Amino acid sequence: MKKIINKPMDVVGEALRGMELAHPELLYTPGYEVISRKEKADKVAVISGGGAGHEPAHAGYVGKGMLDAAVSGNVFSSPSPDRIGDAINRMNSGKGILLIIKNYSGDIMNFGLASDLAEAEDIEVESVVVKDDVAVPDSTYSTGRRGIAGTVFVHKIAGAKAELGGNLKEVKAAAEKAIANIRSMGMAMSPCVLPAVGKPGFVLEDNEIEIGMGIHGEPGVERTRVKTAKETAGILLEKILEDYDYTGSEVAVLVNGLGGTPLMELYILNMEVQKLLEEKNIRAYKTLVGNYMTALDMTGCSLTLMKLDDELKELLDAPCDTPALKIR
Amino acid sequence: MKKIINKPMDVVGEALRGMELAHPELLYTPGYEVISRKEKADKVAVISGGGAGHEPAHAGYVGKGMLDAAVSGNVFSSPSPDRIGDAINRMNSGKGILLIIKNYSGDIMNFGLASDLAEAEDIEVESVVVKDDVAVPDSTYSTGRRGIAGTVFVHKIAGAKAELGGNLKEVKAAAEKAIANIRSMGMAMSPCVLPAVGKPGFVLEDNEIEIGMGIHGEPGVERTRVKTAKETAGILLEKILEDYDYTGSEVAVLVNGLGGTPLMELYILNMEVQKLLEEKNIRAYKTLVGNYMTALDMTGCSLTLMKLDDELKELLDAPCDTPALKIR
Repeated sequence: MKKIINKPMDVVGEALRGMELAHPELLYTPGYEVISRKEKADKVAVISGGGAGHEPAHAGYVGKGMLDAAVSGNVFSSPSPDRIGDAINRMNSGKGILLIIKNYSGDIMNFGLASDLAEAEDIEVESVVVKDDVAVPDSTYSTGRRGIAGTVFVHKIAGAKAELGGNLKEVKAAAEKAIANIRSMGMAMSPCVLPAVGKPGFVLEDNEIEIGMGIHGEPGVERTRVKTAKETAGILLEKILEDYDYTGSEVAVLVNGLGGTPLMELYILNMEVQKLLEEKNIRAYKTLVGNYMTALDMTGCSLTLMKLDDELKELLDAPCDTPALKIR
Repeated sequence: MKKIINKPMDVVGEALRGMELAHPELLYTPGYEVISRKEKADKVAVISGGGAGHEPAHAGYVGKGMLDAAVSGNVFSSPSPDRIGDAINRMNSGKGILLIIKNYSGDIMNFGLASDLAEAEDIEVESVVVKDDVAVPDSTYSTGRRGIAGTVFVHKIAGAKAELGGNLKEVKAAAEKAIANIRSMGMAMSPCVLPAVGKPGFVLEDNEIEIGMGIHGEPGVERTRVKTAKETAGILLEKILEDYDYTGSEVAVLVNGLGGTPLMELYILNMEVQKLLEEKNIRAYKTLVGNYMTALDMTGCSLTLMKLDDELKELLDAPCDTPALKIR
């Protein structure tokens, strides 16, 4: 295994500590594996998290205009309720908490338990669940669709609404609107290696890719030969459009890398995506290209679209200042 | 070869077009492979560039507070003088041009020729050469030390000085000061695959890494077994400190990924780097962690330090707004 790590069991805490050292505006709470803003703001707190291994998600989205805190589990493993509870207590200003949960069984259970415990202490908590991945109806990790890169847009929209002073009901409604209008689809070219395992979780042949693979290496819909960027864009977009008709809409676009794919390739894919969008009369209002929601060192990509209305545009354009996304 | 590309010969132009589509504030000039600001500003123009394959470098640093234009060659191949000339003519406001060149033989020759041609047309052009890599005294690609990730700091410093209204002499002096105070050292864990070649340029065994490898896969100083993050930080920093004594200084730190290494590992490395800096009484004033100067899909990293004085701090902190670096 070739990784820049020390002991496999220490990777999460050490990465978060290394992140805090690079971003002194953030606070790392060891043991609870929470990255939070240093001070709680007098507003609805937006909290997310999940297994580690998806860097910069989720801690990279903590900061003004996005998340108040991100809670990390072990690699590809949900954070425990006590960790989530620490983030809730730490950021609770009395205006309520919105939890943004990716749809994986472990996250649903643990964020749910943490929410119940907080409500028992009279903290108002609401939750939204992101299930943007159109690849498979159910998966080994989830009942129903998985939550993947589209979650970053939900962080942005909910975070902006909270920063602008929305109350808990309004922040939740904005997040729900985003979720309803987001679809994603991905593909993998090579597996990732979990630090604690030391070898790939599956094998893809030299000329083989897997369409629809999840961000933990969960099975997708088809193994096939290596495709061109143009073919890849077509496959991903077609699967998305089968599920949600974006024709005639304005959209936000996210061309996301899975961690091991260089930016050059993501930009080439974006060129092909934008050509196809234009052909289909879908207008790209804003486009993000880069490693936003990864799977350790997996190579591959995902495509996410979010249909925009005036409110979502305003919230998408609102300033944010986080390690992984800055909009001014 | 598993890459998200179309034809290998088209990767550079397609990636730059895909970048322009994601960053409509920038202008891509096909044929010349120049990414520039849309309008020239009434100030010294700062221009850089080099071979492609180092994304986000160099086009990712075009924008307010950094570069006015970046010129791209083919993958790992210097841009021709006519391309560089296009960037010079495009951004020339009459206040002069500073070229920031990484020390590779092809770049030195082509940027030099372009500079001569521009001066023949009465455009005032000055150049600085970055040679921050302490790994090897000469290399297969260069006479003298190679220019690597530290170049990003030179873009920042020179770009800020120009944006603040410095004249050509002052902008060049700021860049020279940065260069004199920057040292970098890297290591590679796996080779990169050039699109036009389709297979790795060299082989590293499963448990083998190469210390001091260049960003084109040029030989380093030693092949050795896989190291821990702590050992890696120690090796890179020791080699840097042998060359330049940063003890007692304030520094900017860049923990750079080579393209295929996930952010989690870079943050872990940063934790170890910061521990060592503290032990050695070197104060990290600002730290960047991420993929800033890559080598396609190579896995590995580099460490860069820049000693700061009040002027360099002010220029480092000055706002910039580019695809790959935003400071407010």
